[in-house]
Amino acid sequence: MEKWIGVVGGVGPFAGIDLLGKIAAQTAVSLDQDHLTVLNWSQPGTIVDRTEFLLGQVAENPAFALAEQVVQLAKMGASVVGIPCNTAHAPRIFNPLRAELAAAHCDVQLLHMIEEVGRFLQEQLPGAKQIGVLSTTGTYRARVYADVLEPLGFTAVLPPLTLQTEKIHPAIYDPVYGLKACGLATDQAQENLRLGLDHLKAAGAEAVILGCTELPLAFAETTAVGLPLIDPTLILARALIREANPAKLKPL
Amino acid sequence: MEKWIGVVGGVGPFAGIDLLGKIAAQTAVSLDQDHLTVLNWSQPGTIVDRTEFLLGQVAENPAFALAEQVVQLAKMGASVVGIPCNTAHAPRIFNPLRAELAAAHCDVQLLHMIEEVGRFLQEQLPGAKQIGVLSTTGTYRARVYADVLEPLGFTAVLPPLTLQTEKIHPAIYDPVYGLKACGLATDQAQENLRLGLDHLKAAGAEAVILGCTELPLAFAETTAVGLPLIDPTLILARALIREANPAKLKPL
Repeated sequence: MEKWIGVVGGVGPFAGIDLLGKIAAQTAVSLDQDHLTVLNWSQPGTIVDRTEFLLGQVAENPAFALAEQVVQLAKMGASVVGIPCNTAHAPRIFNPLRAELAAAHCDVQLLHMIEEVGRFLQEQLPGAKQIGVLSTTGTYRARVYADVLEPLGFTAVLPPLTLQTEKIHPAIYDPVYGLKACGLATDQAQENLRLGLDHLKAAGAEAVILGCTELPLAFAETTAVGLPLIDPTLILARALIREANPAKLKPL
Repeated sequence: MEKWIGVVGGVGPFAGIDLLGKIAAQTAVSLDQDHLTVLNWSQPGTIVDRTEFLLGQVAENPAFALAEQVVQLAKMGASVVGIPCNTAHAPRIFNPLRAELAAAHCDVQLLHMIEEVGRFLQEQLPGAKQIGVLSTTGTYRARVYADVLEPLGFTAVLPPLTLQTEKIHPAIYDPVYGLKACGLATDQAQENLRLGLDHLKAAGAEAVILGCTELPLAFAETTAVGLPLIDPTLILARALIREANPAKLKPL
């Protein structure tokens, strides 16, 4: 029995749409009718910024609004749900989110994007040791990737703090040139990200995780500065299809 | 009070995602939280092909499944809904769809994409007389555009039947090279569409409506063969924002 996929699409909205596109593109179809049922709840106005919460700039935990939207998706019929926001997977957000779902007796299968990336790296890059991570400052400070990758035998390579806060985070968040405001990579955003990639390569990274769901919007290629780019949105899309109906998952 | 937008996203799935992307891109924002609430119900498996119904190849009217999905969107909180499928706006589908909504006491505001295109042409191309239309054979046979454009003083210019059924419809539907199967424009699809554009230009068209929601996936530019391309998906996206919160609609 094919399951229905639910997507919490507002974190951010362009990232949600990117996930929907990757779900459709990774599904083996020849007709409209072959595609999986996918419900997308994009209500970004009620979800406070995940990095601002992790840095103590807002008191409200976005876990509660995220949990409400997962519950809505489950009520609509979704059985397997993804949240295309890396920062939302920080334990200080994701753990209370899971607790809320349990309290609401919502037994939907909520995938953990970061753990899916870890699984992907083990399968696809088993010889790699050092994995670079570009992300929001929330994901960076909360060690979202480091804490998942290190038990698997990988070392997370991060930019130095100044580069992180002055270049990488603004490439995502700047209200004028950032990916969230523009929905595409402006020249300034690309320049900032290139500085990050150059640093991670020089620091020994063998691959780079695009560890914020806005970042894949900036890269049309699957490599940059000679390193493979790991796209968590694509990995989440494939994991959702795998759980909904593995027979429809295209080969990698 | 900002309204929530609902999208019946499965007709086809790539067209639905294109509509979501255009809604986000046409909304004036600087933060995730500024974006409108958009709910997308993509359940293509239950909606029979619109052209097959109009041509008598299947008996079931897709109006009923479409109406069910509009009702679901309304139950979730959507107040203004769009269906990104031109062929679904044929009166033999759209009229019973509206009757189903009335019978279900569903008072959601369902926009009519084709009428929105007519309004756009009146405002933006008031001097034009002859408007070319590329579409599915269902839209073609049902005169979906001709019947809306002619009372507004425009003449719809269509390809000859052989070109329509042997080149244009397959560019959308072919299971190997068509837009619905591939989610992008293969060389063969582009070649077929180019034949259509050349014909419409030679027949006197002053602009061309991409009258199937898969067709904008094939055109990155806003002109082709020297003619402006009219994108009904973009027009529907802007109409949905206008109805949800006109203050957030970007200038054209």
